[in-house]
Amino acid sequence: MSEEQVLVERSENDIVTVTINRPEKLNALTKSMWGKLGDVFAELSADDSVRCIVITGAGEKSFSPGNDISEFETDRSNSEKAAAYGALMARNIDTMKACPHPTLAAIRGICVGGGMEIAGLCDVRICGESSRFGAPIAKLGLVMGYHEIGALSALVGKTAALEILLEGRILDSDAALRLGVVTRVVSDETVMVEAFEAAERIAAGAPLVHRWHKQFLKRLQDPTPLSDAELAEGYACYDTEDFKEGYNAFLEKKTPAFKGR
Amino acid sequence: MSEEQVLVERSENDIVTVTINRPEKLNALTKSMWGKLGDVFAELSADDSVRCIVITGAGEKSFSPGNDISEFETDRSNSEKAAAYGALMARNIDTMKACPHPTLAAIRGICVGGGMEIAGLCDVRICGESSRFGAPIAKLGLVMGYHEIGALSALVGKTAALEILLEGRILDSDAALRLGVVTRVVSDETVMVEAFEAAERIAAGAPLVHRWHKQFLKRLQDPTPLSDAELAEGYACYDTEDFKEGYNAFLEKKTPAFKGR
Amino acid sequence: MSEEQVLVERSENDIVTVTINRPEKLNALTKSMWGKLGDVFAELSADDSVRCIVITGAGEKSFSPGNDISEFETDRSNSEKAAAYGALMARNIDTMKACPHPTLAAIRGICVGGGMEIAGLCDVRICGESSRFGAPIAKLGLVMGYHEIGALSALVGKTAALEILLEGRILDSDAALRLGVVTRVVSDETVMVEAFEAAERIAAGAPLVHRWHKQFLKRLQDPTPLSDAELAEGYACYDTEDFKEGYNAFLEKKTPAFKGR
Repeated sequence: MSEEQVLVERSENDIVTVTINRPEKLNALTKSMWGKLGDVFAELSADDSVRCIVITGAGEKSFSPGNDISEFETDRSNSEKAAAYGALMARNIDTMKACPHPTLAAIRGICVGGGMEIAGLCDVRICGESSRFGAPIAKLGLVMGYHEIGALSALVGKTAALEILLEGRILDSDAALRLGVVTRVVSDETVMVEAFEAAERIAAGAPLVHRWHKQFLKRLQDPTPLSDAELAEGYACYDTEDFKEGYNAFLEKKTPAFKGR
Repeated sequence: MSEEQVLVERSENDIVTVTINRPEKLNALTKSMWGKLGDVFAELSADDSVRCIVITGAGEKSFSPGNDISEFETDRSNSEKAAAYGALMARNIDTMKACPHPTLAAIRGICVGGGMEIAGLCDVRICGESSRFGAPIAKLGLVMGYHEIGALSALVGKTAALEILLEGRILDSDAALRLGVVTRVVSDETVMVEAFEAAERIAAGAPLVHRWHKQFLKRLQDPTPLSDAELAEGYACYDTEDFKEGYNAFLEKKTPAFKGR
Repeated sequence: MSEEQVLVERSENDIVTVTINRPEKLNALTKSMWGKLGDVFAELSADDSVRCIVITGAGEKSFSPGNDISEFETDRSNSEKAAAYGALMARNIDTMKACPHPTLAAIRGICVGGGMEIAGLCDVRICGESSRFGAPIAKLGLVMGYHEIGALSALVGKTAALEILLEGRILDSDAALRLGVVTRVVSDETVMVEAFEAAERIAAGAPLVHRWHKQFLKRLQDPTPLSDAELAEGYACYDTEDFKEGYNAFLEKKTPAFKGR
């Protein structure tokens, strides 16, 4: 069951597509799906051959509206159960944040609550014009815990996070772009085409370079001063095969074939 | 006197409106008004029945142009006097930042200097199309001290703060939206209507949820790791009466009546 | 040679223009030019009479496309050489970041890689409509080290930095404005006029005030609590001659003549 609700497909050029696959419920997330997503991202993170991970929702109507409300009765009816449920969400958030590979969200339609959280953890976020975003949980008497609100705040900043949560506003694609929820808005019909073109551009770049860039930007969130060894890592690329490949391809006006070493 | 220059009104649904009320001077702020604002926010912060605080300026022309220049002669003529004056501003800034309730600025017309600081400390900021913002104090030979410049920087970021201060640029509503000075721009005629509709949406949300969200986002500004007790607080809402109210109202498609417990 | 590739000119009103002057190569940067830029900024930083520094590129086609690729063969062919080259870039970045005077980038045409880094270190950044920005170095197998990626991240935030680096996207002026790469977009023909008008507005402000504002905003990036002496510095301006000058000029509706004391 959970296998099918989170699909993992791999293309020839090592782009992996993770699909939230429960279209009959607009891809509403269940406890088991959060667990499966955490497993999938842990596995992909450990696989050095991956060049780019695209995450999307099945069908054109919805990326995901967030967590399935029907599970509140069984799995989130008090703080203890909710904490167990939340631990699976937190693990997925931590795993996505730590993922060394480039990640890209291809967003069609509704992208709300937990759906917006997953999309927001991706490095590049492309949506269609009619997409809608938000987290109107104050109406439910429901709080966004530290892991989730931390991810939202990292994405849009503290003040925009407050605006989204207090008013429970639903953001259209223009507002989502302005606030940084998405990095690009395209026409609804071209979301998947544009997303995979972007994924191919990313996959065509040197994979070690992408991982270094992600690692450096993460490291800089920590105010601890950089060590000499860390500073030196900024120049390690010059000793890689891929740099020689990239440089020669540039001179010869060819397409480089990077090997990740 | 000071009572009248800062009006406090309360609606039936526990929305409190604080009005900077000196329209004959476009709501220019005096030392006593800063003191009074600090008192008002301290009192409202301690009142758990408050659902949302709206702050606005009397009249359609101006939210506030900042501090009354005429007081420089008497109350800010040297660094010692200026520090005493500044302490009242700093206390108001600290009190507004610490306010547990949602705050909303309804901005008509001029919103400059100290006026922009007060508006910028609110969680949601709605202005009219013709509103103008800025802090052209370098022309006066005047510095924005740490409390104030910290609030500006928290609002728009370091680089936008520099742009505003160095050039002394006056921002129109488009630029204010782009830089995050405001969260929404509406037509001049509808500022108060839109602001109070937003306040009512906020007041209709669960008050404990709003306070938790504000508290969590503030806490995340501090890089100290979260304790287990803090992480657990993210699930405390599931044991509240308001969560049961919100969840049942959702299932029954009714409007929830939250009680803040 | 290096003297000519980095031109320094001073106007009557103490605005200093630094021109990246290698138009036959679209102002591509060489190792010696990075060294010279570091020297120039160190010298200007120590000169209290400077009111504003404008940095621009020679010719209408390009601010700078970044580092000269031809030097990879000689000066960046392995990690050791690249680190020596990078140390000159890092020194220039540190010197520009520490510069106490207001800085302004006047950007025409291409502003990519190291060019975008230099522009991004300026306090105010004005470009023409047809300007283009980016850092498509993953195609070269090349990494942006900590100093450079830190500057990019400080400018546009972590998520936008990732978008720019992973996809290798070239940003048009609209996207550059939205992401904060530039602070203003003007028509191509008016870039230099608008930039120098802005520089004159800045130079007309009190120079001590500008330096305090830059210093305070830098200090606030450090989470260490402010000391009483630091907080008091926010009021030191009230004891300056320039404050008296600014205040009297305001009352008399004259233009103040600030002296920086």
